[in-house]
Amino acid sequence: MHTVPTPHPTPADIPLALLIIFVAARLFREILERLGQPGIAGEILAGIIIGPHVLGAYLPSSINPAAVPPVLAELGVMFLLFRIGLEVKPAAILTLGPTAGAVAACGVALSFASAFGIASLWGHSTLEGLFIAAAIASTSVAVTAEVLASKGYISSRAGRTILAAAVLDDILGLIVLSLVSSYARGGVNILDLAGTAVLAGAFTLFVALWGHRAVGHAVPRLQQRMRAVEAQFTLSMGLLFSLAVLAVWAGVAAIIGAFLAGMALSETVDERLHTMTAGVSELLVPFFLAGIGMSLDPTVFRDPGILVLALVLLIVAILAKLIGCGLGAISLGHQDAMRVGAGMVPRGEVGMVVAGLGRKMGLVSDPVFGIIVFLSVATALLAPPMIRFTFERNQASEPSR
Amino acid sequence: MHTVPTPHPTPADIPLALLIIFVAARLFREILERLGQPGIAGEILAGIIIGPHVLGAYLPSSINPAAVPPVLAELGVMFLLFRIGLEVKPAAILTLGPTAGAVAACGVALSFASAFGIASLWGHSTLEGLFIAAAIASTSVAVTAEVLASKGYISSRAGRTILAAAVLDDILGLIVLSLVSSYARGGVNILDLAGTAVLAGAFTLFVALWGHRAVGHAVPRLQQRMRAVEAQFTLSMGLLFSLAVLAVWAGVAAIIGAFLAGMALSETVDERLHTMTAGVSELLVPFFLAGIGMSLDPTVFRDPGILVLALVLLIVAILAKLIGCGLGAISLGHQDAMRVGAGMVPRGEVGMVVAGLGRKMGLVSDPVFGIIVFLSVATALLAPPMIRFTFERNQASEPSR
Repeated sequence: MHTVPTPHPTPADIPLALLIIFVAARLFREILERLGQPGIAGEILAGIIIGPHVLGAYLPSSINPAAVPPVLAELGVMFLLFRIGLEVKPAAILTLGPTAGAVAACGVALSFASAFGIASLWGHSTLEGLFIAAAIASTSVAVTAEVLASKGYISSRAGRTILAAAVLDDILGLIVLSLVSSYARGGVNILDLAGTAVLAGAFTLFVALWGHRAVGHAVPRLQQRMRAVEAQFTLSMGLLFSLAVLAVWAGVAAIIGAFLAGMALSETVDERLHTMTAGVSELLVPFFLAGIGMSLDPTVFRDPGILVLALVLLIVAILAKLIGCGLGAISLGHQDAMRVGAGMVPRGEVGMVVAGLGRKMGLVSDPVFGIIVFLSVATALLAPPMIRFTFERNQASEPSR
Repeated sequence: MHTVPTPHPTPADIPLALLIIFVAARLFREILERLGQPGIAGEILAGIIIGPHVLGAYLPSSINPAAVPPVLAELGVMFLLFRIGLEVKPAAILTLGPTAGAVAACGVALSFASAFGIASLWGHSTLEGLFIAAAIASTSVAVTAEVLASKGYISSRAGRTILAAAVLDDILGLIVLSLVSSYARGGVNILDLAGTAVLAGAFTLFVALWGHRAVGHAVPRLQQRMRAVEAQFTLSMGLLFSLAVLAVWAGVAAIIGAFLAGMALSETVDERLHTMTAGVSELLVPFFLAGIGMSLDPTVFRDPGILVLALVLLIVAILAKLIGCGLGAISLGHQDAMRVGAGMVPRGEVGMVVAGLGRKMGLVSDPVFGIIVFLSVATALLAPPMIRFTFERNQASEPSR
């Protein structure tokens, strides 16, 4: 690009892209909150609007917001989950384990089966149908947690169940993806797959169960011995990145490791660490949310067939989680079951990962990729009002168990 | 790379690289602080050691720390300067303007002339000599500020003089670079150049003089009207990115804009913003410092001619700033003049920018690139003890003017 050197040795491209994305995301957050809508939806909308297919198409490429490397969004979503983890006491999640397991399993199974059925009816190949189904199977921990946390629902019984189920459901979703991509490559090795599932589950359970004890023992001692300033922050970041790496190696997503790191630290760290983490997450989360919006190409929906399929799949995606997860949580009573169902609706990270992988393998066409991104965006936009509706309804009459 | 899809949809590459760089930088900071050496030197050393030419050469490319996109280092150095700016009251800098101007001008002129002389004596072409000289001309605001701030010297008269002079000196350095690269492209347009210089100077002076008043007027009012949480942080980041972009457009580096944004906000923002900024900077600054170290290729020094030239230039680079800047600050008295001279020694950002540009233009060979990086690293390593020595010496007898 820069064969002719400019007199400006630090090009404005990166700062300008940072400025556009950050300010647009925060501006739309502000606008939507003033309209009584969830701020998170505003940040995603901002991404669609400034994205390469809408406003971005009219901007010179040097000021295209797509110029920002995805590492900022990746770090952003890691810190989003880390910060949520910091607010969660492990005991509060673990006691809900069996219910959360039922919620996750029912939601994933019903989403997968119904989406695969619809895609096959629509005449898509088995492989493409499997990718669509895998992309719709998992709830977005990030979007769900952000909505719950911003509304103060995260410590309620339903909120904790949703969070635990969404974490488990990511693990299930990644196992489904292994299954689908092994099948696409010509064979499913049940033994390999079982190994992956066991390793992923064991890692998550192990860290959730004993992580906070190890941290409570080691961090204060190390911190006391360290000479450099901000020792607690350094140790926390070390744990965050370590668990993110181990999580990927164990077969789950890096963000699950980040969440577990936060949870392990929740009983040990002080207020300063919370505020420092808030700084990183407030800076970087807009890049994650706007990034989801920016990856949507609205032009694929000029084909009415694609548009109708997208809308049908959207309805199926919502109903599958409402019914599947609601049934899984029925032991919590009608009220909380509805809340859990609504809270599990948002799709996000895993869906985007599946879509990207399918496209790389040449098994997911551009329109289908567009549909999968659309489902992530639409469920993320629809879920906050659904969550608010179910949580605010009859709040006074909730049994204070 | 990933033609065969793996069952892990989020590859560990990025988290692993983040982990390696962050932990190595913090570990070496800790080790050097225990040895009574400056932590900043430890983070640069960590970069050399894990860099692609030392340990990195033995690692599989998938876990090469060089895999982290440079945007993290760029954001890191912006936040480093922003955070320093937050600690600086504009009045404290502006009253030192004339002295700082003399310090900057004498230091740049002497560094440039002596380095060009040495390079020419050594038989380098005029163009390569000009690039070497331009790379050595400017002090590193980032390294200097970090050392001064970490030792608590930043609010002393000498500390404030150094900071103001280093900012001015970056502007001079970028003008020198314009001059050299125009010359390399075949002609110097004096009018263009004068325009650049005036614009860059006017922007910096304007924001330094009136930025804090505008901010003091606008930020509290906007903050009160905003509905979304963390309004002060959002506004501050908006200002930071805006001034970074404007700075580049005005012909100075983005980091100067970041510094000016911090300074403009210094009298308005609360403690929470300081802590949130600390979070971002503690997370990202290691990527900047280790990044400097990682760009050094020690193997070019197997050629004894290169090694000797590098050492001679190092001595010249140190003496030029000690003498030039010391003379410029002589009105502050012998003691403070020495401190200012020592504080102006570190080279960094601008040097790396010049070296990168020269290499892109095909005018800077690999060994010369290595020498320029070496000078940045060596002066950054040598400066902290020199600064400490001059500041701690006779501290008690300092006139408390």
